[in-house]
Amino acid sequence: MEKLYKIAIDTKGSDKGQEMMIRGALMALDRHPALGVCLVGDKDVIEKATATRPDLASRIEIVDAPDEITNYDSPATALFEKPNSSLVKALMLVSERDDMTGLINAGSTGALIAGSMRFLSGKERVRPALAAVLPAENGSFTCLVDTGATIDCGAATLLHFAHLGSDFMRRLYRLDSPRVGLLSNGAEPTKGNKVVKEAHALLRDAEDINFIGNIEGTGALSGACDVLVCDGFAGNQVLKVSEGIARRLITDIVKYSKATGDSGLMKLVSHLMGIYDFNSLGGGIILGAAKPVIKAHGAANEQSIVNTAGMLLNIAENREIFEGQ
Amino acid sequence: MEKLYKIAIDTKGSDKGQEMMIRGALMALDRHPALGVCLVGDKDVIEKATATRPDLASRIEIVDAPDEITNYDSPATALFEKPNSSLVKALMLVSERDDMTGLINAGSTGALIAGSMRFLSGKERVRPALAAVLPAENGSFTCLVDTGATIDCGAATLLHFAHLGSDFMRRLYRLDSPRVGLLSNGAEPTKGNKVVKEAHALLRDAEDINFIGNIEGTGALSGACDVLVCDGFAGNQVLKVSEGIARRLITDIVKYSKATGDSGLMKLVSHLMGIYDFNSLGGGIILGAAKPVIKAHGAANEQSIVNTAGMLLNIAENREIFEGQ
Repeated sequence: MEKLYKIAIDTKGSDKGQEMMIRGALMALDRHPALGVCLVGDKDVIEKATATRPDLASRIEIVDAPDEITNYDSPATALFEKPNSSLVKALMLVSERDDMTGLINAGSTGALIAGSMRFLSGKERVRPALAAVLPAENGSFTCLVDTGATIDCGAATLLHFAHLGSDFMRRLYRLDSPRVGLLSNGAEPTKGNKVVKEAHALLRDAEDINFIGNIEGTGALSGACDVLVCDGFAGNQVLKVSEGIARRLITDIVKYSKATGDSGLMKLVSHLMGIYDFNSLGGGIILGAAKPVIKAHGAANEQSIVNTAGMLLNIAENREIFEGQ
Repeated sequence: MEKLYKIAIDTKGSDKGQEMMIRGALMALDRHPALGVCLVGDKDVIEKATATRPDLASRIEIVDAPDEITNYDSPATALFEKPNSSLVKALMLVSERDDMTGLINAGSTGALIAGSMRFLSGKERVRPALAAVLPAENGSFTCLVDTGATIDCGAATLLHFAHLGSDFMRRLYRLDSPRVGLLSNGAEPTKGNKVVKEAHALLRDAEDINFIGNIEGTGALSGACDVLVCDGFAGNQVLKVSEGIARRLITDIVKYSKATGDSGLMKLVSHLMGIYDFNSLGGGIILGAAKPVIKAHGAANEQSIVNTAGMLLNIAENREIFEGQ
């Protein structure tokens, strides 16, 4: 039997319920033969939902976790107060077992970040960042960091994000020297808010960062840089404004199609939906953890679980290649 | 002869040169019979470029201004050092003459804002804001304020922007009680950076503001609010990310059209280009000045001059109706 890459999936915390997460996991197993999953959540719910697929049983583990950390819990204290929550159990599992390569969760972002820091911090304890890897215009990928883990940042934190993003892109895509851009309101070094201007100077002087300068919002997803650095507030705007505008244009096309009776346009709509997958746009990867942790969107659907599982698999395989060099 | 609404157009400062600004002005005159323009710039250039249209001569004034304020000048000092610049001459003209209802400029934003404060401050001297009026998803318009005049803002400044934006939307669209939203990274009052959280409390307690709460980037242009408040850094991102993504989707459609040989899609492209006019998206209105001042995008084309002139005309006519009530 070939090697399985096992990932933990916290089935609780999604807006759409445990059943959706489990259906997504089954679809991911169908799609990726090298994948194994450990489903963490209400044992009886998971057993019932997976019973229809005995053919996949050998690649499914189940861990019972009766409790749940919600968005109403304080991320700082929930980890201590709810040791039987699906999130804590999933984090401990990934932390303790060498054969578990990563984790997917669709619940509280704050608790996931705090938990990754607590259970999955690497050799050097670093402040984690929430990054998104976005398809750029020229076919490459841009790692946007941070997208919401740290809302108020100083300049040193932005420099730290540049390091985390560069390391990640170096490992995931084997780029020798990832190009780092700084999100600002103008291309000139004099443009930016106070923190961005300070960060510009730090990035320019950092010898281990390939800093290419400020990037404006128009070029955020142009592929001009491999890593785009900003604070969590600005990164959240880049992500959500992109999502809002893309969704709006696609809605406009649907309306235009109905108004003109040109039903052929619906093929174009599918094509664009394939590129601008709003569900995956809303997710993110926690950088700075010892193993890859993916935060799926609270409103993620089955397909986004398939995609995020595929991404974890990709990271795990690449890491193996990379570390085996 | 019917009443003319006269506006000053600073023909210098555009990336595309004086001739483009003058061509835009002539097109605006063709389009709007109630419009008169005063073109400020190199007299000989303007005379040559307008000589082809003697039929419009009665609606054109020319003011010679040999000097120009560029993006390389310091906005704070340029106004004093360059009294013969087209911008200073245009501002003085609008300030001194009752028959001039507004101003269009495509040059240095900083100098325009500083100049509006110096020459066109209202009864109460207020810090001006640079707003954009954007077409929302539901067919209404949203006033985004600030889009770049003040990059570093405190909470009190955001409250001030809410007042400026509400006043403007009340006047321009005669809304009784414009709905004000605060741009944040989540809908809950606890979401936001330090300044945004403070501003949330100020806005909630302000009796003369119809505050509806936080708005996320996904809903920035949904029409959920009439005035969307944020600092100039975030506003610049909303504007430029929207522009970048819309342009990218439209480019995708063009590529898809070529790949599939479906040339009928180019009609859809024109339709979308009409809605997402990048040139006008990049412009802005200075709020807090005694008369409306429009900053056109540095890369604006003739059509955007026509559109901005139409907007000034609209404001002038509405103001008259409003103040005549």
